[in-house]
Amino acid sequence: MHIGEKIIDRPLRWGMVGGGRTSNVGYKHRLGALRDNTAFQMVCGAFDLDYERCIDFGKNLGMDPKRLYPDYKTMFEEEAKLPDGVEVVDIATPNFQHYEVVKAALEAGLHVICEKPLFFEVEQGLEMQKLAEEKGKLVCVTYGFSGSQLLLQMRHMVKEGMLGKIHMVDLKYTHGYGCDPKGDVQSEGQKWRVDPTKVGKSFVLGDLSTHTFYESQLATNDMKVKQVLCDRQAFVGSRYPLEDNAYVLIRYEGGAVGRMWTSCVDAGTIDTQVIRIVGSKASLEWHDANPNLLYYQEQGKPAQTMVRANDYLCDECNADESLGATHIEGLSESWANIYLKFAAAIDAKNRGDEEKLKNMVYPDLQHGIDGIRWISACAKSADQGGVWVDFA
Amino acid sequence: MHIGEKIIDRPLRWGMVGGGRTSNVGYKHRLGALRDNTAFQMVCGAFDLDYERCIDFGKNLGMDPKRLYPDYKTMFEEEAKLPDGVEVVDIATPNFQHYEVVKAALEAGLHVICEKPLFFEVEQGLEMQKLAEEKGKLVCVTYGFSGSQLLLQMRHMVKEGMLGKIHMVDLKYTHGYGCDPKGDVQSEGQKWRVDPTKVGKSFVLGDLSTHTFYESQLATNDMKVKQVLCDRQAFVGSRYPLEDNAYVLIRYEGGAVGRMWTSCVDAGTIDTQVIRIVGSKASLEWHDANPNLLYYQEQGKPAQTMVRANDYLCDECNADESLGATHIEGLSESWANIYLKFAAAIDAKNRGDEEKLKNMVYPDLQHGIDGIRWISACAKSADQGGVWVDFA
Amino acid sequence: MHIGEKIIDRPLRWGMVGGGRTSNVGYKHRLGALRDNTAFQMVCGAFDLDYERCIDFGKNLGMDPKRLYPDYKTMFEEEAKLPDGVEVVDIATPNFQHYEVVKAALEAGLHVICEKPLFFEVEQGLEMQKLAEEKGKLVCVTYGFSGSQLLLQMRHMVKEGMLGKIHMVDLKYTHGYGCDPKGDVQSEGQKWRVDPTKVGKSFVLGDLSTHTFYESQLATNDMKVKQVLCDRQAFVGSRYPLEDNAYVLIRYEGGAVGRMWTSCVDAGTIDTQVIRIVGSKASLEWHDANPNLLYYQEQGKPAQTMVRANDYLCDECNADESLGATHIEGLSESWANIYLKFAAAIDAKNRGDEEKLKNMVYPDLQHGIDGIRWISACAKSADQGGVWVDFA
Amino acid sequence: MHIGEKIIDRPLRWGMVGGGRTSNVGYKHRLGALRDNTAFQMVCGAFDLDYERCIDFGKNLGMDPKRLYPDYKTMFEEEAKLPDGVEVVDIATPNFQHYEVVKAALEAGLHVICEKPLFFEVEQGLEMQKLAEEKGKLVCVTYGFSGSQLLLQMRHMVKEGMLGKIHMVDLKYTHGYGCDPKGDVQSEGQKWRVDPTKVGKSFVLGDLSTHTFYESQLATNDMKVKQVLCDRQAFVGSRYPLEDNAYVLIRYEGGAVGRMWTSCVDAGTIDTQVIRIVGSKASLEWHDANPNLLYYQEQGKPAQTMVRANDYLCDECNADESLGATHIEGLSESWANIYLKFAAAIDAKNRGDEEKLKNMVYPDLQHGIDGIRWISACAKSADQGGVWVDFA
Repeated sequence: MHIGEKIIDRPLRWGMVGGGRTSNVGYKHRLGALRDNTAFQMVCGAFDLDYERCIDFGKNLGMDPKRLYPDYKTMFEEEAKLPDGVEVVDIATPNFQHYEVVKAALEAGLHVICEKPLFFEVEQGLEMQKLAEEKGKLVCVTYGFSGSQLLLQMRHMVKEGMLGKIHMVDLKYTHGYGCDPKGDVQSEGQKWRVDPTKVGKSFVLGDLSTHTFYESQLATNDMKVKQVLCDRQAFVGSRYPLEDNAYVLIRYEGGAVGRMWTSCVDAGTIDTQVIRIVGSKASLEWHDANPNLLYYQEQGKPAQTMVRANDYLCDECNADESLGATHIEGLSESWANIYLKFAAAIDAKNRGDEEKLKNMVYPDLQHGIDGIRWISACAKSADQGGVWVDFA
Repeated sequence: MHIGEKIIDRPLRWGMVGGGRTSNVGYKHRLGALRDNTAFQMVCGAFDLDYERCIDFGKNLGMDPKRLYPDYKTMFEEEAKLPDGVEVVDIATPNFQHYEVVKAALEAGLHVICEKPLFFEVEQGLEMQKLAEEKGKLVCVTYGFSGSQLLLQMRHMVKEGMLGKIHMVDLKYTHGYGCDPKGDVQSEGQKWRVDPTKVGKSFVLGDLSTHTFYESQLATNDMKVKQVLCDRQAFVGSRYPLEDNAYVLIRYEGGAVGRMWTSCVDAGTIDTQVIRIVGSKASLEWHDANPNLLYYQEQGKPAQTMVRANDYLCDECNADESLGATHIEGLSESWANIYLKFAAAIDAKNRGDEEKLKNMVYPDLQHGIDGIRWISACAKSADQGGVWVDFA
Repeated sequence: MHIGEKIIDRPLRWGMVGGGRTSNVGYKHRLGALRDNTAFQMVCGAFDLDYERCIDFGKNLGMDPKRLYPDYKTMFEEEAKLPDGVEVVDIATPNFQHYEVVKAALEAGLHVICEKPLFFEVEQGLEMQKLAEEKGKLVCVTYGFSGSQLLLQMRHMVKEGMLGKIHMVDLKYTHGYGCDPKGDVQSEGQKWRVDPTKVGKSFVLGDLSTHTFYESQLATNDMKVKQVLCDRQAFVGSRYPLEDNAYVLIRYEGGAVGRMWTSCVDAGTIDTQVIRIVGSKASLEWHDANPNLLYYQEQGKPAQTMVRANDYLCDECNADESLGATHIEGLSESWANIYLKFAAAIDAKNRGDEEKLKNMVYPDLQHGIDGIRWISACAKSADQGGVWVDFA
Repeated sequence: MHIGEKIIDRPLRWGMVGGGRTSNVGYKHRLGALRDNTAFQMVCGAFDLDYERCIDFGKNLGMDPKRLYPDYKTMFEEEAKLPDGVEVVDIATPNFQHYEVVKAALEAGLHVICEKPLFFEVEQGLEMQKLAEEKGKLVCVTYGFSGSQLLLQMRHMVKEGMLGKIHMVDLKYTHGYGCDPKGDVQSEGQKWRVDPTKVGKSFVLGDLSTHTFYESQLATNDMKVKQVLCDRQAFVGSRYPLEDNAYVLIRYEGGAVGRMWTSCVDAGTIDTQVIRIVGSKASLEWHDANPNLLYYQEQGKPAQTMVRANDYLCDECNADESLGATHIEGLSESWANIYLKFAAAIDAKNRGDEEKLKNMVYPDLQHGIDGIRWISACAKSADQGGVWVDFA
């Protein structure tokens, strides 16, 4: 149970690239990192391509204006000169910049926390993996929903065989806020997401479903995907060749199967992410729309609703709870939990504690690369007319 | 609103083939047909291959033992000799007998009400269509869930454009009662369902998903399917080459897409059938697990829950309600509603009122044939490795 | 499990007083009594004060016009002359006629099935109890929701101590269809309900809460009420001195407490009846809005949702199921279940099987009298300003 | 919409009395106050009666050990000597200390943020009101759930007449974590709550229902209570004369009525706080168990589910949202919202902006006093046997 006490010796010096005033996700990064002021402290930022706005915004966050920079290159350069310069850089820019900023950060000897989806190509991921290893640094990926503690309960129950053999994995991440195409031209946060040069091979497959795919990997103890088949559409035609809706069928190694539905044109939906894992004797289901509940349905028995922060949950799960039973947690707790793990992992890396690092469960570079692989395989399948392609 | 008053001049003389004591579905047929004693009266039966049990059962239903027969052939022969012999025959046998009994019934000049899925092959359906036309008789199909009145509200709202252009149709009919393979050998009602010689090309695709497929056709005003792709599995291995789980992707004429998940190994599920129709501006969702509710979600507005028997629903919908608002209807009302339509349709046919017949909305022979087409296309796709096949 | 086979030797000859075309509840009586045609057969009726309408209606139900009568007196007289005259009379008139018709029926040697609330005064109930005993006849009361089988599961679990000691009983029966006062003058079925000379001492306390009170007695194995305190209001002023909203506090013998909220001005409510029983270690909750589900919440364990027709339910519960698991039952099944019990009870009475009768659980005259007692005590408390009054 | 930018010139210097490692609620105070580091900064603390533990805990929060104090008196004294001493003191001690600490803090010229319920007696509240006014300081009360933004939507809709005339207010705050009496002796956080010398006149009435009562006042625009009637019980006998369960009936000025159920022995409940407001034409319902949803039920129309952070909500509501639509908020956002209001109010007070202060809606001293009044009236009613008492 977290109550804000430190888990590492001192807060890590942390700075942001992107994530400024017009970013939807920037605030979540800050909420995650700075929740207790014991894991990270925000020392610098290159929040915005508009330097004026960057300075104004940073000042409004209470930051030292001297450490607000016009761009990431200047930031890395200037911070390197400081005795207490930034140690960890957080990248919350549009996708197309991830690769160059991650590379520059690693080369500058910084740990990296980067938004998903990581890069455009799996190869870029493998290159960064090599570079990170050389530099002895970590690259963490902000699958921001994955800190919901009941996902760890799912992982535990799957591992313990409480579902029997896993047969099906049913995944969904849909909403309807893309029904109105006006957002594509009016919202700064949306504009680049429908521009293939900035977002990569996909819109919703990358923007939404990579979250749910990672969460399903977390919950299933990284069940290996063998093949995927994807059919995708642009119901708002201007989004073509990107998609605003996609169906994916999945075949796992060992015979299990799965599905994903991802969409931003699922008009009016109020139940966005759903993860259902079906085994030979029981199922688990979790909805992002109320992450405090986990549904456990053993065939032939009354269905059970498990609630966060109760003694019947496993230790890994309850270790990440912070508000007590009957007190609802939301997305900010999820972000805080993954940032605490990033802090612990970076600290372990810094201390050379590879043993601890090996056993930690959090969204690391490998999971970031799997996300790229997911997008690439889905896009390839769809572009070939909806055929089975290997997930490799 | 139904309160039991007659809708046709006199009750039709109705008899059953199959549907006896060990049949799960037989009681639903009787509940549907005999609800008010004004549409049908049960005059004869060949309920069971075991004639003793047929007689005992029929007597317990209060029937005249003289009109309880050892088999359908005898029944058709003997009833034909009576001045008030049976007029409509109801077929609730295992699938493989449907074709021969329907054929014999039509040839005996009887109207037919038959369980789904109708036959093994589309061609058999077309043959019966020709025969029925020649004989001036109807073949009705008991998609028993499709009498739920809110499906008509969906149909109305789709037709009126309240959802915008239809983009997606998401379908599910799953449960977990097939997780335990013991039922396959112990239950009379289950045994034939996993025997390809008796059930045809599929297990759950035919047994379950044909219901939901028809309901979706009802709700979408018969949107035309262009192609399907199916991946199916037998998680209980002894069911192979039949499936106990199947995923289907659908492409409709005009660009809409859809999915179906059908399974009897979805362990512990308590929400069996779900129909979600997504349009360019709103969605509708209906769950068989509470057929009294219809969810209407207009993008950008509060989600609405519509409840049966309220004035804001359309006339076609409210015409089929019978208990008043706040009084829950269930599956028996659904069966009663389709049987009332069968009675009205048969009566119109008898009176030569083809105009009325043409405008009636109920599961007729054409929808029965579409169900066979659905199974055949899905099985073909799956057997070819999960590829797109034309729905024709 | 019911599938329509007879449970008594032959159907009882049954007739209705009231319950005609303009009656909301009449159809439910017929659905209950005639579901399988093996427990009751409808032989006669005095459905309506308007004799023309009575005849037209009865003919539309397929009845012999000779046995449609202008009033109950004529009906009892004429039927008594027939060799196969009516045996059981069903009373679905406005409340103020219950007493005189029940009395006449008993005096005519008929068994009685009567709508709730039974009479205006407890004394009338006691008088009828005496008369029924003299005549060797039964008076059954149509608490029509109480046939929902999961109420028997609650009764079983309470009796078995699965909740620990019962501490609280929380009851609700509210809806909002009385918000609009127009129904009071426009609807025949509503008009008499707001007229003290025809309805008695209460509007919603009698019309609604007597149902839920009886159901709670069923579920708690007839826990004894010691005192009640009631505060009631007429938010639609013209209903005064009757109430359209009432709060009741309950003190049971032995220290348990309870509450009831009943209202027809609970605007927009879609969850009408709720019964929550709280024990020292667990709770049970049942909602009429989906009677197929029962919520079992053991403190410190995951909450359970029990679903109708599963093996984990008790035998008494499953004995009353008729559609199979995953097939939704509604209010018509509830009515059918209590009518089957009435048939079995009347048959036992006719056969002199007092032993069987003693052990039967169904809404009998005693429960009807308790309903009058409930209304009288609540009205008395409210009229004295909301004070505690003994329930005696 | 909050994204962490400052709303006042500089963070207020803030310190805590109580709320240390063994306090359930202390972390919520810190989460609320320190969410963005722009409204408050934590400068000092007297977290614990055990000074060692206080120091260890404060250091683990990253605080300067010199500003960790053995008790509140020392803290006020020492901080007063510093040029940048504490400005606002937060009191999260057991109830019986609130009065003396608030008084000392005001006398030391500090603004106060205090846990509910405020004091034992209304008179103490009035005395502090006078003192606060003399000192020109504010006393804010942490009704920590009341920052949930949809309560402001309720307030707006009630004020705008969208419900018609308010008729009923139905309130609940129950859980079952008190079923096991072991917590009373084993948990530090629970022990004092069942000790009348430390907790005051009530257990759950004060601990739980004061929250919901304030929230209802917020949602109804402070509807005036005229009388209450309370029946309370100690189902765990050792808690007597305190209660672990209580029922309250409410009569408001103008004819509306209400109820409250509060309990810690509502075994297994997972839906703790419910606020339902019923008007002459529509109702609103909000559940703490998912504060992101608001149910709006207009009689005769489909029920609506409103979801946080959508454009159809009022400005006051959306001003307090911070994560964007489809991203779930929980209790920490609620606390953050009220702390932001405290900051704005204190800042306005400091600046002498009484106009702004007058129009601010947040839990202030007056609402704290109303909470004491609520407890006192309920306890008085119950102790007199459950009679109506004036709320004054």
